[in-house]
Amino acid sequence: MTKKNDALSRLIQALCALPNVGPKTAQRMAHTLLQQKRAQAAELADALSQALKLVRHCRSCHTFCEGELCTICADERRDRKRLMIVQMPADISAMEAARCHDGLYFVLMGQVNPVQDMGLEHIALNELIQRLQQSDVEEIIIATSFTAEGDATAYILIELLKDLPYKISRLAKGIPLGADLEYVDAGTLAEAVYRRSKARE
Amino acid sequence: MTKKNDALSRLIQALCALPNVGPKTAQRMAHTLLQQKRAQAAELADALSQALKLVRHCRSCHTFCEGELCTICADERRDRKRLMIVQMPADISAMEAARCHDGLYFVLMGQVNPVQDMGLEHIALNELIQRLQQSDVEEIIIATSFTAEGDATAYILIELLKDLPYKISRLAKGIPLGADLEYVDAGTLAEAVYRRSKARE
Repeated sequence: MTKKNDALSRLIQALCALPNVGPKTAQRMAHTLLQQKRAQAAELADALSQALKLVRHCRSCHTFCEGELCTICADERRDRKRLMIVQMPADISAMEAARCHDGLYFVLMGQVNPVQDMGLEHIALNELIQRLQQSDVEEIIIATSFTAEGDATAYILIELLKDLPYKISRLAKGIPLGADLEYVDAGTLAEAVYRRSKARE
Repeated sequence: MTKKNDALSRLIQALCALPNVGPKTAQRMAHTLLQQKRAQAAELADALSQALKLVRHCRSCHTFCEGELCTICADERRDRKRLMIVQMPADISAMEAARCHDGLYFVLMGQVNPVQDMGLEHIALNELIQRLQQSDVEEIIIATSFTAEGDATAYILIELLKDLPYKISRLAKGIPLGADLEYVDAGTLAEAVYRRSKARE
């Protein structure tokens, strides 16, 4: 068939860098881009080059932004005493959509995964320590996922912060709203029973 | 949060041009590229620009290639009397891996879908007619999928070719090798019973 160093093969290999994209999906993506979506493909190539040039980390919360400070950190109305630590910028979007946190954020930009040998270098610990040294933070909410990686990450944060004078909490575990109990996994059910709250005070 | 015309939002929107990629997946892709895979991201932007410049259609079979003719069409050893019509270049890869066709191919680069109003302009019919006018083809194998779109595409091809002196066939329908009958869908089972072949001649 085609040589492995031609432009199409090179594009297919490059697309495999995208998360959850294997050779078959990459092949399909390449064909779609080159056949039906040439204008969008040119826009993608340019947008990617531009983003690599322009996007950097917020000096305060470490999320992606183009200036020195992201819009949330620059917003004077946010409560500077409460800091929520999340794994990824997408978690900020989710939290902001829920309108349940008016404090600031810090984005770890990753998680640790002892099983896959992803250690402390995968989270922005140094940036977090720097951030805490120059701030009015009183309460820290650790908002990592309840997965093996999220738990390991939370454990590291709790160890790091244990001798510091912050009020530290994690998100509540339990049944998500709108879920039928029969489809909730056993671990979550067990946590929800164990952490049950009084129906009447 | 972030403005909608910043570099990150633009990248996320551009990634949505990829097949089966919605805003959530695009956001995750953008974050991964900018955080952990900057070198691969730069390579992707360049590979995409290069492919848009270099990749064109084979003059004979209409698949993607960089020169005038793809390697299969240029190969003197292929049987020029048998032409297999496939939907996408990926189908050629699959057929070549199976080593069951030593003729040539023609790639439609799409399919028709009457339900989604995707008509004849979505397949390379003009190129196919041109191709047949200047060739020694005697037999045509229509190798479209057995989906609504593949069937509609095959129907159009059969109509187009019906008054021409070619031997025309489609791929066989039936149970795939290695499949447990209990997991085979009812339509395939029915076709397999209807098209059963003698166990002993």
